[in-house]
Amino acid sequence: MTPTFVLTRPQMGENIGAAARAMLNFGVDRMRIVDPRDGWPNRAAVAMASGAGRVLDAATVHPDVAGSVSDCTYVYATTARMRDMTKEVLSPEAAMQDAARRIAEGQHVAVMFGPERAGLENEDLAQANALITVPVNPEFPSLNLAQCVLLVGYEWVRASAEIEHQVTEMAGTDWADGQEIEHLARHFEERLEGAGFFFPEHKAPSMKMNLRNFWSRMPLTRADVQTLHGMLRQMVRWASRQ
Amino acid sequence: MTPTFVLTRPQMGENIGAAARAMLNFGVDRMRIVDPRDGWPNRAAVAMASGAGRVLDAATVHPDVAGSVSDCTYVYATTARMRDMTKEVLSPEAAMQDAARRIAEGQHVAVMFGPERAGLENEDLAQANALITVPVNPEFPSLNLAQCVLLVGYEWVRASAEIEHQVTEMAGTDWADGQEIEHLARHFEERLEGAGFFFPEHKAPSMKMNLRNFWSRMPLTRADVQTLHGMLRQMVRWASRQ
Repeated sequence: MTPTFVLTRPQMGENIGAAARAMLNFGVDRMRIVDPRDGWPNRAAVAMASGAGRVLDAATVHPDVAGSVSDCTYVYATTARMRDMTKEVLSPEAAMQDAARRIAEGQHVAVMFGPERAGLENEDLAQANALITVPVNPEFPSLNLAQCVLLVGYEWVRASAEIEHQVTEMAGTDWADGQEIEHLARHFEERLEGAGFFFPEHKAPSMKMNLRNFWSRMPLTRADVQTLHGMLRQMVRWASRQ
Repeated sequence: MTPTFVLTRPQMGENIGAAARAMLNFGVDRMRIVDPRDGWPNRAAVAMASGAGRVLDAATVHPDVAGSVSDCTYVYATTARMRDMTKEVLSPEAAMQDAARRIAEGQHVAVMFGPERAGLENEDLAQANALITVPVNPEFPSLNLAQCVLLVGYEWVRASAEIEHQVTEMAGTDWADGQEIEHLARHFEERLEGAGFFFPEHKAPSMKMNLRNFWSRMPLTRADVQTLHGMLRQMVRWASRQ
């Protein structure tokens, strides 16, 4: 169960369609629309939604905000500007973490988005339990409706999947082990010694140590090790033909 | 200091302008453009950027990816689809946390975004140190360029606000930049080609690509790069005496 995204008095059909696409990137497919300026259904919305059309098909339309959240037990309202009201303001992250907990408890949760130009009115916000403000650059706050929907949807996925900053290991990577690195290091040291690389002589021990350290520092796969051996062998073969 | 966002072969001016707006919401104002389809400057970009015009004014244009990241010591590349390559894949959150640490240490970091339809080519990705994939709905992945830029910018703000100025082991390390890696890659490619390493001929392009990818994967300091150049030159000198 995902949150329900409520578009309040949206103006352009294209923006409703774009919002549908934005939501569906993050698996949010429950949309409600309050008093759309150009009525419903809306061809421009359908055209823009394209592959996200099912979100529009399932969307319900309501004459006012109250009707759109009547079955909701918690409502967040997005707002760009500071509001002079006693209402908790959350980041999208905090709001969606809160939403994930409520939904897990069986609550029905909604997020309200305002009309493109004006944003939500104080009367709309009065029906929300908390506000969401995206931490945008105060010198250039320019999120459009679909972008706001996108960011909240993104944070929904992060919160509901409890994705912690994982790094996807290069799946199934065959890392070279210590023995293979040692063998590689020795191959290079032998050939470079023969080529006179460790010069002058008093510097040779530290140069060799640095090079051995170098191999340890590099994240080498078995394939990398084979490539490096091959490169060195080919240089030697070539040299023998000179 | 924020990351630099690199738009690679962007097609429509409007999308460049939209990207500028998206970035500036999160205070990212450093843009570079690689080989824009419709040239530069671009009126459609300016019109769309509107209040974010200063991002475009300050943007630099480059004929190729290598030129756009030559002074960068770490490059992330965004990709939508799974790639069959040995390259670390990070979420936007993990990537921007990593970026925030690197920038705090004084590194110059870039994030590459691909052309609107096709995304980045393997040749582009070969020059990246790691990949970023946004965790989108596999049934409906539809992020456009500005939305991808928006999400990475958003995570940048979250990460840079959290960053503590820890001293890490390798803080103050003199990492090789893109230009130095490119130069090293070319030196090796030329000598190995002359030595007949890229054999058989039909395998040569993929062998060269793998090797180029290899250099990008290795965390090389400037000293490492000098050592590697020196090793190769010594092998060549030795060969000439055989």
